[in-house]
Parts: sequence; C-alpha cells; structure tokens
Amino acid sequence: MPLWFLTFAEILDFMTRAELFSQIQKKSSFLCVGLDADINKIPAHLKSESDPIFSFCKEIIEETADYAVAYKPNIAFFEALGPQGWETLQKVNELIPKEIFTIADAKRGDIGNTSQLYAKAFFEKMDFDSVTVAPYMGADSVTPFLEFEDKWVILLALTSNVGSMDFQLIKDENGKPLYQTVLEKSQEWGTPENLMYVVGATRGELIGEVRKIVPDHFFLVPGVGAQGGSLEDVAKYGMNSTCGLLVNSSRGIIYASGEKDFGKAARQEAKKLQGEMKNLLEMYL
Amino acid sequence: MPLWFLTFAEILDFMTRAELFSQIQKKSSFLCVGLDADINKIPAHLKSESDPIFSFCKEIIEETADYAVAYKPNIAFFEALGPQGWETLQKVNELIPKEIFTIADAKRGDIGNTSQLYAKAFFEKMDFDSVTVAPYMGADSVTPFLEFEDKWVILLALTSNVGSMDFQLIKDENGKPLYQTVLEKSQEWGTPENLMYVVGATRGELIGEVRKIVPDHFFLVPGVGAQGGSLEDVAKYGMNSTCGLLVNSSRGIIYASGEKDFGKAARQEAKKLQGEMKNLLEMYL
Repeated sequence: MPLWFLTFAEILDFMTRAELFSQIQKKSSFLCVGLDADINKIPAHLKSESDPIFSFCKEIIEETADYAVAYKPNIAFFEALGPQGWETLQKVNELIPKEIFTIADAKRGDIGNTSQLYAKAFFEKMDFDSVTVAPYMGADSVTPFLEFEDKWVILLALTSNVGSMDFQLIKDENGKPLYQTVLEKSQEWGTPENLMYVVGATRGELIGEVRKIVPDHFFLVPGVGAQGGSLEDVAKYGMNSTCGLLVNSSRGIIYASGEKDFGKAARQEAKKLQGEMKNLLEMYL
Repeated sequence: MPLWFLTFAEILDFMTRAELFSQIQKKSSFLCVGLDADINKIPAHLKSESDPIFSFCKEIIEETADYAVAYKPNIAFFEALGPQGWETLQKVNELIPKEIFTIADAKRGDIGNTSQLYAKAFFEKMDFDSVTVAPYMGADSVTPFLEFEDKWVILLALTSNVGSMDFQLIKDENGKPLYQTVLEKSQEWGTPENLMYVVGATRGELIGEVRKIVPDHFFLVPGVGAQGGSLEDVAKYGMNSTCGLLVNSSRGIIYASGEKDFGKAARQEAKKLQGEMKNLLEMYL
C-alpha cells in the first residue's frame, strides 16, 4: 500500500497514547495476546523445528494480528530457556507488526543504576514499547524506565493473583490501601503518556476504584478468562474516553488447541474476544 | 588436598545455613562481593578480550575468594548485554568456588507458574544457591522459589535506596510499617533454612527492628560503603548467634582501581573489609 496510507505507528517505531487509541478504534479491539510460550505445552509437531518457541509464536502472531492491539511476551518463559531463549525473544519481538504495541512482561525493578540497565535491555538491546515494573522499591526504581523517550512503564498496582491480597490491599493509617498509594505516588513520576498500570480483572468493582484515581491512564488487565475475571465488568468499570484498557488473554488463546490447528484455533478465540470487545466499545465509549 | 579434608559445602553443590556459618567462621568474614560488572567501567585493557566481562569477573573472583563468603552477580548488568550476557553469567557462576554462596540478584516475582519458571532459570538452568525476590505480588509469587530443595529466596524487606521510603515504611492501621508485615507474613512461607531478607544498611537502628522480628534469618545487607551505611552499626544491630549477616560491597571493591591492577586493588579492599569483619565477629558473636 502507498506510504500515505499508513498511520504514524505503522511507520514509526514507537507508539503514543493517541496512536494506541487509533489502533483500538481501527481494529475495534483492546485485546492483548499474552505470549506465555511454554515448551511443555506447545503442539508436539513443532518440537522438531530448529526453534520451536519461535515457530509457535510466529504462527500465533500471524493468526491473531488482525484482532490484537498488543502482544505481551512473558519474559520468564524465554529466560527459562537460557541464552537461546533471549535470542528467541528478540526474534519474536522483531516480527510483531510495528503498529502493534509490545509489552515485555518482566516485572523488573531495582535501585536506579540497575533499573536503568534493565530498561536498556528491553528498550535498546531489544525494542519493546513497554515493560512491566514492580513498585516495591519506590521512585528511583521506576523513574529510570520513564526516562526513555517514547517508551512506557506498566506499573504493578493491583494484580490478579491470590497473593495480591497479602500486601496490596493493606490499609494505611488513613484507611487507604497500598495499591491506591502506589497509584497516587506514581503519578508524580509519569504521565498518561508514558505510564500504564497493571490492574487485575478478578474484582470488577476494584477496577472502578482504580479508574477514579487515574482517570486517563491505560490499564493492562490480566485475569480475564483462565483466572475468572469478566470482560464486561472490566469494560463497565474501567473504560475511559480513549478506551484506556488493554485486556490480556494468554492461555485461552495460545493453547486453544494443542494440535496442528493451534494457529487457527487461536485466531478463532482472538476473533471471538475481539467481537465481544467491539460490542463493549460501542456500548461504553 | 584429600577429600576428607573438605567440608560438605566444598563437595556438594548446595549450602545449608550451618554450612554458611561454618564458612563465615573459617574465613572470619561475612563479605558478599557484588558483581555489578559494567562494560563501561571495567579497565580499558580488558576490552580487547573475547569476553571482557567474564575476564573482569574471573580476576575479581580469583583475587577476592579468600575473603568472600558470597558472590552476588547483579543480573541487570548481564541482561543488558543480550543473549551473550547470559552466557557470560552462566560461565561466571560456574567458576565461583563451590564453598562460596551464590546470589542471583534478579529481584524477580510474578504469578505462580511464572515465578516457577524464573526459579528454574536461576536454580536449574544455572546453578545459583539463591535469588532475590520482590514481595509486592504476595505468597504465590514467592513460594514457587521456595519449593526448590536446598535453594534460597532472599526477599526484599527494607531496601537501601531513597525510594524505599515511598512504600516500605508506610504504616498500616495498627501503626506497623509495610516492611514489617512483609517480614511477618513471609515467615509463613519459608524458614531460616531457605529464606533470607534484603535489609539495607543505611539506617542502623532499623536493622535492629528487623532483627527483633526475624531473630534467626540471614540478612543480605546492601548499602555499606558507596551508599553510606556503617559496617559497625550493621554488626551491632544485626548480628545473631550464627552471624546472620551477608554484607555486600560492589563498587568499593570491584572498581577500587580502573587500571591493570584492578584485581590486586579489589583484593586489598576485600581484605580490608574482612579485617573489620573479623573484629566485629569477635566483638559481637
């Protein structure tokens, strides 16, 4: 197609909030496909390939790219394969179409000079648009990631796992739960243009609480599907005027079939979710 | 030397708390050398080597092994080098003498199946004795690491950076700071035999507070030296009957000289710290 037909995101190697919203509108989707590519779960016929995880991710991406606005490789699955896994990760990231937002789900965070190196690993050595970051160590563990122009931090606020109740919901002396303090404090560090939040889907009404505190920021929402969250609740409580949601599905899509038809099955699942998202966008946007 | 001369730790590939204490007594040292091996900071003459970071770490380890009971590669420094960095990390870990405790300073932590893969990366793919873990996501993000026999979790409790004040010191409704809840809650997950804590050295009296809550656990203490903490305070407030301390020094040792004599300079610094530690062990143990 001629160049003037392409949007900014298709030409450039980074994505603004406006551009992400434009992709969401174009595809009528706020689907993030989680690439939790497990060597023990991928279809057997791939195991004779020279790089089975790459072949798996490649087919998943090719089949679901029409319906996804983001891909989220789960870094642990690649890291567990050793140096070869990092080569695979890099190749996988490179084959994701430029107009699709990429998330290194790494949950990093350390003192300043160390966080800066993690940022370099994901933003420079590889070219991810964003990385998930853990907040426990505070400002100087997060801000080094925010100093990279046109890159995003996705900060853990309220996660979807059982353990989220151990610390994230602890109320301070004024009755404010920790995750709310994380949301408030971190707004001094970044803006809706470079900071998103992980907000689990397992409790719909809590997403509404989060939305009140951060009206403009995007949320990366795990926990829909396999972990039991409801897509309707997420949209009802979480959507804002630029959608403001990236809802992740990993296992439900990528392991929809364990056979040779896994790509087509993933496509069907992604398409189904996109259809639901289209309706929700029409309803709430 | 004949085999019957070796301790358990010298023969076996894992280290118990008793064995770690025995090494501390043997060397009169509780020094951990932090391998923050920065390609931009290592001596210029190493840059023509085929793997400069490996050559740097090798000489540091050879020169300081007499005085150190632990080595702590900072994973970000290797990760930032891409797949090659992971090969270097593996080689570095392999050349550390078996009787010396190894710490993958990675600050990982994610939902259960993902944490399990991070654990596999550091405990199986590589053979580290321990890994640092962030607590924000709670029990199911930490326990997968604890399920590996003869391996250790070093959980972030009270870190030494400025940002530690953002969340770790927040008091709950009963006036208890978050880091204390982390200490208390995590004792349901692990024991002094497989769980240590990161406790920063920048506030000596706080180490005493931590010691009251966890009398038996080892602490990994960063922040002595470059970050301003006092070794005497750490020993005074933190030592227990099996020492219970691993005090880390990174930059002060490994960059003691930026010239060809960097190994000898590192040895001198390590020896100096070990001398101070010997006195403190005699004073407080």
